[in-house]
This record gives sequence, structure tokens and C-alpha cells, in this order.
Amino acid sequence: MNRVGVIMGSDSDYKVMEDALKVLREFEIDFEAKISSAHRTLERTVAWVKAFEAQGGKIIIAAAGLAAHLPGVIAGATTLPVIGVPLSSGSLQGIDALYSIVQMPPGIPVATVGIGAAKNAALLAVQILASQDKPLNDKVKKYRAKMMNDIEVKDEALQKMVSQGIKGIVI
Amino acid sequence: MNRVGVIMGSDSDYKVMEDALKVLREFEIDFEAKISSAHRTLERTVAWVKAFEAQGGKIIIAAAGLAAHLPGVIAGATTLPVIGVPLSSGSLQGIDALYSIVQMPPGIPVATVGIGAAKNAALLAVQILASQDKPLNDKVKKYRAKMMNDIEVKDEALQKMVSQGIKGIVI
Amino acid sequence: MNRVGVIMGSDSDYKVMEDALKVLREFEIDFEAKISSAHRTLERTVAWVKAFEAQGGKIIIAAAGLAAHLPGVIAGATTLPVIGVPLSSGSLQGIDALYSIVQMPPGIPVATVGIGAAKNAALLAVQILASQDKPLNDKVKKYRAKMMNDIEVKDEALQKMVSQGIKGIVI
Amino acid sequence: MNRVGVIMGSDSDYKVMEDALKVLREFEIDFEAKISSAHRTLERTVAWVKAFEAQGGKIIIAAAGLAAHLPGVIAGATTLPVIGVPLSSGSLQGIDALYSIVQMPPGIPVATVGIGAAKNAALLAVQILASQDKPLNDKVKKYRAKMMNDIEVKDEALQKMVSQGIKGIVI
Amino acid sequence: MNRVGVIMGSDSDYKVMEDALKVLREFEIDFEAKISSAHRTLERTVAWVKAFEAQGGKIIIAAAGLAAHLPGVIAGATTLPVIGVPLSSGSLQGIDALYSIVQMPPGIPVATVGIGAAKNAALLAVQILASQDKPLNDKVKKYRAKMMNDIEVKDEALQKMVSQGIKGIVI
Amino acid sequence: MNRVGVIMGSDSDYKVMEDALKVLREFEIDFEAKISSAHRTLERTVAWVKAFEAQGGKIIIAAAGLAAHLPGVIAGATTLPVIGVPLSSGSLQGIDALYSIVQMPPGIPVATVGIGAAKNAALLAVQILASQDKPLNDKVKKYRAKMMNDIEVKDEALQKMVSQGIKGIVI
Amino acid sequence: MNRVGVIMGSDSDYKVMEDALKVLREFEIDFEAKISSAHRTLERTVAWVKAFEAQGGKIIIAAAGLAAHLPGVIAGATTLPVIGVPLSSGSLQGIDALYSIVQMPPGIPVATVGIGAAKNAALLAVQILASQDKPLNDKVKKYRAKMMNDIEVKDEALQKMVSQGIKGIVI
Amino acid sequence: MNRVGVIMGSDSDYKVMEDALKVLREFEIDFEAKISSAHRTLERTVAWVKAFEAQGGKIIIAAAGLAAHLPGVIAGATTLPVIGVPLSSGSLQGIDALYSIVQMPPGIPVATVGIGAAKNAALLAVQILASQDKPLNDKVKKYRAKMMNDIEVKDEALQKMVSQGIKGIVI
Repeated sequence: MNRVGVIMGSDSDYKVMEDALKVLREFEIDFEAKISSAHRTLERTVAWVKAFEAQGGKIIIAAAGLAAHLPGVIAGATTLPVIGVPLSSGSLQGIDALYSIVQMPPGIPVATVGIGAAKNAALLAVQILASQDKPLNDKVKKYRAKMMNDIEVKDEALQKMVSQGIKGIVI
Repeated sequence: MNRVGVIMGSDSDYKVMEDALKVLREFEIDFEAKISSAHRTLERTVAWVKAFEAQGGKIIIAAAGLAAHLPGVIAGATTLPVIGVPLSSGSLQGIDALYSIVQMPPGIPVATVGIGAAKNAALLAVQILASQDKPLNDKVKKYRAKMMNDIEVKDEALQKMVSQGIKGIVI
Repeated sequence: MNRVGVIMGSDSDYKVMEDALKVLREFEIDFEAKISSAHRTLERTVAWVKAFEAQGGKIIIAAAGLAAHLPGVIAGATTLPVIGVPLSSGSLQGIDALYSIVQMPPGIPVATVGIGAAKNAALLAVQILASQDKPLNDKVKKYRAKMMNDIEVKDEALQKMVSQGIKGIVI
Repeated sequence: MNRVGVIMGSDSDYKVMEDALKVLREFEIDFEAKISSAHRTLERTVAWVKAFEAQGGKIIIAAAGLAAHLPGVIAGATTLPVIGVPLSSGSLQGIDALYSIVQMPPGIPVATVGIGAAKNAALLAVQILASQDKPLNDKVKKYRAKMMNDIEVKDEALQKMVSQGIKGIVI
Repeated sequence: MNRVGVIMGSDSDYKVMEDALKVLREFEIDFEAKISSAHRTLERTVAWVKAFEAQGGKIIIAAAGLAAHLPGVIAGATTLPVIGVPLSSGSLQGIDALYSIVQMPPGIPVATVGIGAAKNAALLAVQILASQDKPLNDKVKKYRAKMMNDIEVKDEALQKMVSQGIKGIVI
Repeated sequence: MNRVGVIMGSDSDYKVMEDALKVLREFEIDFEAKISSAHRTLERTVAWVKAFEAQGGKIIIAAAGLAAHLPGVIAGATTLPVIGVPLSSGSLQGIDALYSIVQMPPGIPVATVGIGAAKNAALLAVQILASQDKPLNDKVKKYRAKMMNDIEVKDEALQKMVSQGIKGIVI
Repeated sequence: MNRVGVIMGSDSDYKVMEDALKVLREFEIDFEAKISSAHRTLERTVAWVKAFEAQGGKIIIAAAGLAAHLPGVIAGATTLPVIGVPLSSGSLQGIDALYSIVQMPPGIPVATVGIGAAKNAALLAVQILASQDKPLNDKVKKYRAKMMNDIEVKDEALQKMVSQGIKGIVI
Repeated sequence: MNRVGVIMGSDSDYKVMEDALKVLREFEIDFEAKISSAHRTLERTVAWVKAFEAQGGKIIIAAAGLAAHLPGVIAGATTLPVIGVPLSSGSLQGIDALYSIVQMPPGIPVATVGIGAAKNAALLAVQILASQDKPLNDKVKKYRAKMMNDIEVKDEALQKMVSQGIKGIVI
């Protein structure tokens, strides 16, 4: 059983979305990844969503750029929680995708993360699963502790650097 | 045979889209109007699009606000030209709908008009039909002539008003 | 045990967030509501988050306007999934709150819904719970069916209205 | 008889608009391409529009950047459908061109596509022609089928890649 | 001889542009006002511009909202300096008009003033004329002196108000 | 000796800036208020700044709307800290003022607060003074405590309201 | 006598503003160029403006980036027409400068050109001078004719290129 | 005693914030620098703020990108003046950080400087300290004098360059 499905509208989205897959792998969550479009292959997309839900899937992460309809269309085709990832593409640099994903009409929510935030999308999926799964939750807590520790390590490096002297700027 | 289909995502869109219906009526174009959602009733929407195309429909006008997916989803489900009307709704006042409609990915175009521009959407549909329909084209030319005349009438009124004197402002 | 916590930064947010509480009541989800600020009462906020998690809470909905830090600060203080609701307030009409909530740094996601979308925030919480709770999921499916039916009813009303005639506009 | 006219305001627009010409060539649509400006050579532009319409042209694609007046001016000079392509140029990266093209006043619509979307402009023109031209419509349907197939091919590649293993990130 | 021409695209623009006419009247500048459209009556607009230039006109003020092409089209049709006034209209509240007017391509400048700034447009025209007209320049200097004096009068009123006491707010 | 100077570009700014004066009065800070413009009365403005600094003034709060130059010009004329308050005015609703105030060039900072945030400007001035003034700092701490208490009071009211029952919405 | 003054806030602006100087040289307009800041050297800037006006100067072009106060401050210090050039600099890419220049308060206009449009600023200055200077106006007309001719030359090149064949894209 | 604390949310912010440290060093202000996050290490951040205030610190400079909560959270945890530096990061290029920092709710101000303006943040801190510290104020005045002199030097270089001749552009 794959608990998380990661779907993207185009293969060019993979280079960003790979981070989501890595996080899921890191947390040992079974997932499936899919390329399918809300416009070019609508029926295939809907069929995949229904099959994913039927096999016991719990959360869908959907990523798209430009007029990003994929997360919203999927949210309309399932009652599973859908996490939307707006991708930066072209002149509007992801604002178009952000508005297209987050401003859903009443009744069909999409849980939107930041522009290009594939990693956060996966972490959000993990946290949702972890709220019902004690061992997974322990991993999340450990992951958080590691993040805290990383900051302390970096802070120490900064203290060393600053103590070794910063020259003033001649302005 | 209805040549134009006008579809909107919610009944609250009707107060804007009524202008499109009036223009079509004015030009004696047979049309059908529909409320159906890209999210709440996706399959019903796609079924309507296919039925509309099958019965000989030529153009679809689709209107939506917020994360406005209706025009794009319809454009993916038919090869008829689709005209998208972004509607102003909520805090972003139609910018969200504009970006969600106009920034379609390569392969699936939507002919987008201005925010709330129901009348222009209908005129665009009429012009498309008129390019293959001489009597309709004559009506369009007459309509344009009337618009030109209206400006002349309003300009005359302005000339009269100005000649009767504008007082300076004490600043 | 309250499964959902709804927190807002100011009592003036209540008039929007009431819709979230109504949805939760509708789905018979036990919840608690809280006013607490990320700036004025940071420690009290963090204490509430920890207590909510400790008593078995599953999801937190956090709403704020302007430089909306409440959802992000809470997301940093818990590993429960946090749903952020940007509220429109003042000159920037919610864009400030949207960016302040959705653009979280890597590691600490917030599941963001649309500006003022209190109802969708609650529905998202319900869908997350429903993915592990069969009877709740049945209610969600029923709710969706009702939304579909509403559109059909409204569409019928439109058909009647259109068939009774729309006069052309004299342009 | 050239059915589609493609006009651009400057030769620097050609590198984007070439994609539109390629699509038209692909679909074997006779077209003419033109460089002419709404500001520098207004009368020449209007003369070309009228000549294009007189020789039996059906659709005009007009592309421009910055304060992009070319599509709107042409739309005022003909009753043929006009497709506007906003081009990204300078600091505002095409937002200026998008607003200058899509926000047309009532009475004179421009069918606007996305920023830099030359290919979609041509496809929209093809779809408009195809709605009255069965053999062309068959080509469009084939083109769509190819797009669908491309996604399936890419999805297969993704499945293979994922099955070969994605390492988790050490965060 | 009318030294300033004030042209607007629609009679609805008059309620804003009246302020420009009042300023011109105040400075005793002969002017003419015109309603004519860049889209609906392009040739009539160009004819007026050429006639205005031929009769000895010196400056044109052109106002428009939405995709505001009037100032740019006029600037292409004359070598007289053209002052553009973006007007607020519809959802984008004048941003569309501002970008459509100020972002002119190289070679054809438009002197743009603020959104709705009809009064400043007229003052700019007056200052341009005054740079070659000593008595007019004296009037401008007097006008400036009056503005300075107004501020002093208002400041005195503030001093009085403040000295009479401002109660603290109970926060 | 007035420790804080509050200057605004126009008397119409007073209705917002009154809140700043009230806060200063509340904290018993001697202040002076001034109307003077960066454009209309530049020399008078600079003279006031220099006089204010000479008499021992410590902080200047400057408020302006539109192309808000007052804070920046004052910051260039003194080495006292200058707090800028962008005011909402006209179509751009304060974004113009925000950018005009906050984006100062290197060398001449302005401490910018939110759009229309007169109260926060005064509190910032108070906090700056308080960092060198123990009794004033005690008042600030008390003020903060009161804000915390207000939230607790409002939260209690919310608890009561919620416990008395929220009806579900029929959606 | 220098008829045009070109002032910029920083030497880094020169690489853009050089185009303005070249145009003035091309039209044989005597000009002076100046680096002076509205913030760092306010009094020196005002002194230069007054000296420039006193020696018979007719127009000032002022360029600045970020919170671009230079054009507005100069406009307040003279009654000569002031042309403002917003420059792109830093994260906001010139939007900050555009709003800071164009949104002047009532009474003190700045004739704003596009972001980075140094060439158009100079052409606008030339057109203003030419409206009172027949030989200069002849040069402007010749310059316009050259621009028209350039477009024809480029269009011919396009015709040749297109006639030599454009391959269709395999999509 | 360190009078200024400079805190940043991530080590990647250091490359921008180094300029602030250099300015402080230049003015011989004792400072401490810190990496700590509002989300990942909230309690550690608050502890540092309280310790910094307790040891006699006077001003905190806080820098962050994206949904930049660090300055606001710190401002809620201390009554010292807090200077916020929005950093450009990702698709929104600092607009997200600017709104997240400047639009603070009533009661908790943050003194915001421009996007990436680390140097101005430090200068603002210096000016605040200098308003109570005569020798430091003398240094600030000297620094300003140097900035004025730099402009004069650059202006001289421009005069030389211009006098050596600028060729006209063939347009």
C-alpha cells in the first residue's frame, strides 16, 4: 500500500519534486510518483486518483506551474487531503501557480505550500501521517531535533568567524 | 443547434455573465447556458462539454473566479475554442482568476478576456462565428458603426458642455 | 479529547473564523477555539500548543492577518499538521498575510488555504481526520454529494430563467 | 489566401513568435508574417490589417511587449478575431504587456494568451479554423492524442527512474 | 489657437478630467476637449491629432483607463509632447492603465502622471508652456507660492489643535 | 525640550496620525507636530528639521502618502533616527508610499512601519527613548502586560461564546 | 546656455542614462549632466536646480532607482518641467522607483517615462523643445521617418526569412 | 556590554548581513551576531533575546527571508527597538519577507529597512545610539560628510567624461 501519491503535470517538474520523493524515502513512507496532466490527460489523471484512493492511499501531493490546475482538479476528484506545490515557471515566477492553487473555491480545499517547496510538501504529508502513527512521529521529532542542532552548529561557526575579526567597510 | 455554450462555475457568476447572454441574444446566436463546476461536478462538466461539441456547438465561453480552473479544464476536454472570463471575487479582486485562466501550459490555449468582461467574451464569440458567416459579419460591422456614432454623440455633448464654460478651480 | 484546535491572533478574526467552527460542529468534530497572539502572548501561545498536542489533539487551524506569524510560529512549536488561514486586513487586503503564511522556510510547513477561507480550513481538517476514520469519511462523501446536487438545482433554475427569455442589450 | 496573419511590433519579437509560425506550418495553414508597429507605423499597420481582411484572412495573431498596443489597435481596425500575445521585455517581465492586451474596453475584445505563449496563440488560431474545417479538426485531435501519448511515455520513464531508487536526503 | 488639447476615450472619464480643464481655465490657457477612442474611432482620433497640431496646438493631454492605448497611439501620430493620464477603472484600479501608458517602447515617449492625476497633467502642460512664456511663468510661481502659504495656514491650525490637547488612548 | 517630532505632508494625514500623538501623550513624551511638505515647502521642512535637532529632539516620525518623499528627505537632512509611516491614498492604497519610504538607498535609512501604522510608529519612538530611560521603559513593560491581559480577557469571552454553542452551517 | 539638464542620483546610473546624453547630442541640444543626490546632497541639488533655471535652462531630466526621490524633490524646487526616469535596481526591479516617481501629490507633477527609458526621456525633452523650435521639429520628424523606414527594412528581412521556409515543430 | 545584537535565521543570510557587521565595526560599536530561527529554535531565540536585553543590549537587528517571522517574534519578546531586514530569497524576491516584516499588528512595531539593506540597518542602529552619544554622533556626521564628498568626486569624473565628448546614437 502506498500511503502518499506524488503527481506532477510535466516531466520538467521532476527536478524540483525529486526533493519530495527523497524526504518520503528518508522517512520510509511508501509512495508512488506519477506524471499526468489536468489538461492533456484529464481522464487518466482522475482514474489514477480514484485508483490511488481505492488501494488505500492517504495523501496526494500535486505539483504544477503556470495556471496550475492539477492540485485543484485532483482535490475535486477525491476526499483525500491534497497538498499543492506551486512551481515557478516563466515570467510570473510562480505567482500564477500560487494563486491558481491556494485560492480554491469554498468546499474543495487544497493544502498549499510555498513556491517550489517540494520538501515542505513531503514533510507536511509525513506530519499528517505521523499524527496517527507513533513510530513515524518519533522520527519527525528526531528530524526536528536535528534541525535545531544544525542551527547550533552553524551558530558556533559564526561565533568563530566573527571573533576572528570583521574589517569595517570604507564607505 | 446551439453555436455558443456559456458555462459558469457558480450561480453567483450569473449577475456578471448575463451581459454575455444579452449580447448573444442581440446578435441572434443560439446558445445554451450552464452552471457546472470544475471541482464539485467535474464529470458532469466534461460530459456537458462533449455533448455540446457533439451537437455541433462551435465555441464555449467559460467564466470563473478565484482559482478559476473551469476554462482550462474545459479547454483540455474539447478542441473547440474556449473563451475564458476571469471574475473578480474576494481579496485578490480577479488577479487570481486572470492568472489562473490566461497562463495555460503549452498545448491547451484559452482565449482570455479582461476581468469581468462578459460582454467582450460574447463579442469575441460573435466575431469568431462572423468570420465564417457573412450576414452575421454585417451585423458586427453595424454594431461597430453604432459604437463609433455613440462616441460622436458624446463628444458633441462634451463640446456643448465645455463651450458653456468651466470655472477654474481655486487651488 | 479535542481533535482540532482553532487559534486566532485577535478577537476581530472571529467573525471570519466562525465559519470554521460551524463546519467542525456540522461534522461533530470536538474542537477547542483560542485567542492568543504570536507577538503579544508568545509564551502562552506555545504553552497552549503543547497542551493541545499532549491531550491528544490532531490538527491546528491558525488564522491571522497582516504580517501573519501565528501559523508559522505554531508550526515551529509542534509536529502536528498546522493549517494556516490568511485574513484580509488593511491596505494589502490579505496578500501580506498570504505571503507571511505560505512562504515558510524548508523544514516547517504550513498547509495554507485561500485568503479568508475559514470554511475550507475546517474542511481540510475534516478530510485529514476522515482519511483515518471511516464514518467521518462517509459524512465527507455525503457533503460532497450535497454540493454536487446544489449545483444541479442551481443549474435548473438557470435553465428556467434563460428559457423565459433574456433581452438583448442596446449597446 | 492566407488564413492567419501574424504581426509583431519589432524584429526582436521574432525569436519568440517563430514558434507560432512553426505550429501553423505544422498544420499546413497558409499564413503571412509582418513586422509593423502600432506607434511608429500606425497607418501602415492599419493598411495591412484591412488588406489582410480583404484578401480573405480569418484570424490575426498580434504580439507585443511593454505597453503592448498592437493587438488592441488592430482589434479596433478589423472585426476579425484578434489573438494577443503579451511578450516579456524589460523590468516588468511581461505583466505590463499582459495588462495592456487583456484589459480591453467593452466593445473591442482581444483573445489573450499567456505571456510569451506564441505556440498557444497559433494553436488557438488553428482550433478556431478547425471548428469549421473537418480535416483540420482531425489533425487537431491527432495532435492532442500525441500530447497525451507523450505524457504516458514520460510517466513510464519516471516509473523506471523511481523504481531504481531515490536516496533520502540527509537534512 | 488652442495650445492644449485634452482628449479622453470615453465620456465616463470626464468626471476625473474636468479637473484638468479647470486648471487650464484658471491659467487662461486656450484649450479644446475631445472624446475619441483609440479602438472604436481610431481614424477620427488620428485626424483630430493632426488637425490639432496643424492649427498650432502645443501639447496633448490624453486620458484612458483599462488597457489604455489612447495616449500611446496619439504619441505615435504626432511629434507634439503627449501627457498621459492613467485612470482607475475596474478590478485592477488603474495599474493596468499605468503600465499601458508609461511603458512605451523606445522612440515614442509619453509623459505619464499619476493614476487619476488630471490636475497634475494640466499643471505639467502649463509648466511646459510657461518655460517659453514669461507672464505664464509668473502665474505658475504665484500658484506655487499659494500652495506654500496653504500649508502654513494648515500647520497653524494643527498647532492650535495640538495645543488644545490630545487625550492619550487607552490601549 | 520636545523629544519626538511628528511631521506630515498634508492636513489630510492628520486623521491617521492622530493615533501617534495620542500614544505619545499616553506615555507623557513631549512632542511637536508639524505639517510641511517635501515638495511644496522643501526649505521650510529642512529648516524645521534642523531646528528640531538643535533644540534637542531625538526622533522624527514622518508620514506621507503616494510618492511619499517626506521621510526620506528628512532622513537626508538629519542624523536623528527617522521613522516613516506610509499612508494609504488613492488607487495604489499605500503600496506606492510603502515602496517610496522603505526602499531607501544605502547610507540614509528610514525606519519604516506598516501602511497606516501611526500607532506603531509612536510605540517604536517610545521604545527607542525607553532603551535609555528606565522609568519610560517600565511604562512600556506595563503597556505590554496590559496587551497580554487584553488577549486573555478576549479569550475568556470566546470560551464562553463557544461553550454556549455554535450551530453547524447547512452548506 | 544649456537647455536640458540631466541629473542622476548616483554614478552607477550613468550606464543607463548615457543613452539620454547620446540622443541630446544627436539632436545638437546643449545640455549639462550632473550627479547629485536628493538625500546625501540635498542642498547642493537644490542649488544646482536653481542655477540651471537661472542660466536659462528649459527642462530637467532626473533619474533614480529604489525609493527614487530625486525627480520629485527637483520638481518641488523649480517650475521647469521635470522628466523622471525610474531605474531598475535591486529586488523590486524598478517598480519601487516607478511608484516613487509617478505618484506625485497634486500640485507638483513629474513627467514620468518607462523603467530605464533614458532614451525616451531625452526624446520627450527634444519634443518639448521642438514644439517651439521649427528646425528642431524638422529633425524630430526626420527621426520619426527613419524609425518608420527601419521597420520596413526589418519587415522585408522577415518576409525573406519566412519565404525561405520555417520548419514545423514536432510537438 | 554589546550594544547591538545581529540575529539571522540561517547561515545563508550571512553573506548579506556581513555588511551590517562591517558598519558596526567601522563605528566601533560592540555587537554580537547570532544564528537562530523563529521556527526551528524558537525557545533558544527567545532565550537569547532576553539574555541580550539583560546584559544591557540596546538594539536588535533581525534578518530573514521568505515568510520572515524572526524580527516580529523577537519584537514580541523584548521592548528593545528591533530593526528588521527583509532578505530576497526564492521566487518572490523579498516581497514576501518585506510584507512579513513591515506589516506588524498594532502594539508590536518593527523598524523595517529595504530588501537586503543590511548596511542601512546597521546605520539606523548607529543613528539611534548616536542620538544619546555625542562622540558617536560626531562620527555619523563625519560619515555623512564623506558621502557628500564622494558624490562631488563622482560628479567631477562625470563632468570630465562628458566634456570629452559623447557620440550621438544612430537610432
